[in-house]
Amino acid sequence: MQERLIDRNPLPPGIGARLASQLAFVAEVDRLKSVLRASLLAAEERRENDAEHSWHLALMVIVLAEYAEEPIDVGRTIQLVVIHDLIEIYAGDSPVYDPAAVRTQAVREAAAADRLFTQLPEDQAAQLRAMWEEYEAGTTPEARFGRALDRVEPMLLNWLNEGGTWGMPGANLGTVRARAAGIEPGSSRLHAAVSALIAESTARGWIRPE
Amino acid sequence: MQERLIDRNPLPPGIGARLASQLAFVAEVDRLKSVLRASLLAAEERRENDAEHSWHLALMVIVLAEYAEEPIDVGRTIQLVVIHDLIEIYAGDSPVYDPAAVRTQAVREAAAADRLFTQLPEDQAAQLRAMWEEYEAGTTPEARFGRALDRVEPMLLNWLNEGGTWGMPGANLGTVRARAAGIEPGSSRLHAAVSALIAESTARGWIRPE
Repeated sequence: MQERLIDRNPLPPGIGARLASQLAFVAEVDRLKSVLRASLLAAEERRENDAEHSWHLALMVIVLAEYAEEPIDVGRTIQLVVIHDLIEIYAGDSPVYDPAAVRTQAVREAAAADRLFTQLPEDQAAQLRAMWEEYEAGTTPEARFGRALDRVEPMLLNWLNEGGTWGMPGANLGTVRARAAGIEPGSSRLHAAVSALIAESTARGWIRPE
Repeated sequence: MQERLIDRNPLPPGIGARLASQLAFVAEVDRLKSVLRASLLAAEERRENDAEHSWHLALMVIVLAEYAEEPIDVGRTIQLVVIHDLIEIYAGDSPVYDPAAVRTQAVREAAAADRLFTQLPEDQAAQLRAMWEEYEAGTTPEARFGRALDRVEPMLLNWLNEGGTWGMPGANLGTVRARAAGIEPGSSRLHAAVSALIAESTARGWIRPE
């Protein structure tokens, strides 16, 4: 197993055990900046990483909260999106249009969660694990809205890139619409807007018909 | 003046004016992923960008909130750190150990704020501008804790990089300690921990004595 980043240069004495384990965790999650997604940025020609993506979702919660299907606690929704991809530090990204990656995703991610969250003090390990599970299950208005934004963001990037990941082998009008359908439980208004992007992108040849 | 990212590929009709301007803003802030900071990552050898940095602060609010000097609203603190560097999209980063950049910083950032936030609907432009000004002024416990984390994060990265930006010409024990002093109003506990990192880093030769 890979060493933790902090093990390369352990913290000096004089920092209490609880804070030291929290700072070690804060150091370890620097790895999220190195997990590449399939999505291309709009502002420059390179792939997006998970930390940037998670920040973008947090910003979208602030700007788009009024479109949530049910009333949401904005602060709690941001917490969910900030931590939603943390387990990819060890599990890697699973591109939605890559069936092989999606097949093994759940098993890889549960193992990664066990390994990651247990690096925190017990109370916080339980708290972050519960937030991640809430997000994954989509059982609250906050989780449903976060999951909606997680689908809106890459589709907006694809629009700005004149196709982007819609050009991947597994993507066509059917699979793209199926992915976009996951927006509706969190926000029917945003689902309608994304549907307009998808229709126009198909008309322009950026999405293959089924 | 640079065109907005959305102007390269305007949104299709059928999306209301308010939502369209919000989505255009969400697209435009993709640029934050291209604003490079002086800090090096711990996980790979490249410079950190503002979007990654902002995400890291948001995660730190969740994990380190218990060390805030005064009680804070965690959700509101995360909102402040998520938006705190947005104006650098147009103003650029101002490395703290670069006196020339710091000298012109306030003027550049105020102009950038005028240009950026006005792209949102009026109510949200006022809301985000007020949050940014609250953060800058450090007038609330949430702003003070966010500003503390903004100093802790690069110092932790420097520790993991065996010096990092502490090797810049303008950095020495005096300027590093002065920068770290900005942590104290937000968190004396985190200030004490960072002071331990600074003392040990000086002993190891990663920070020049004054």
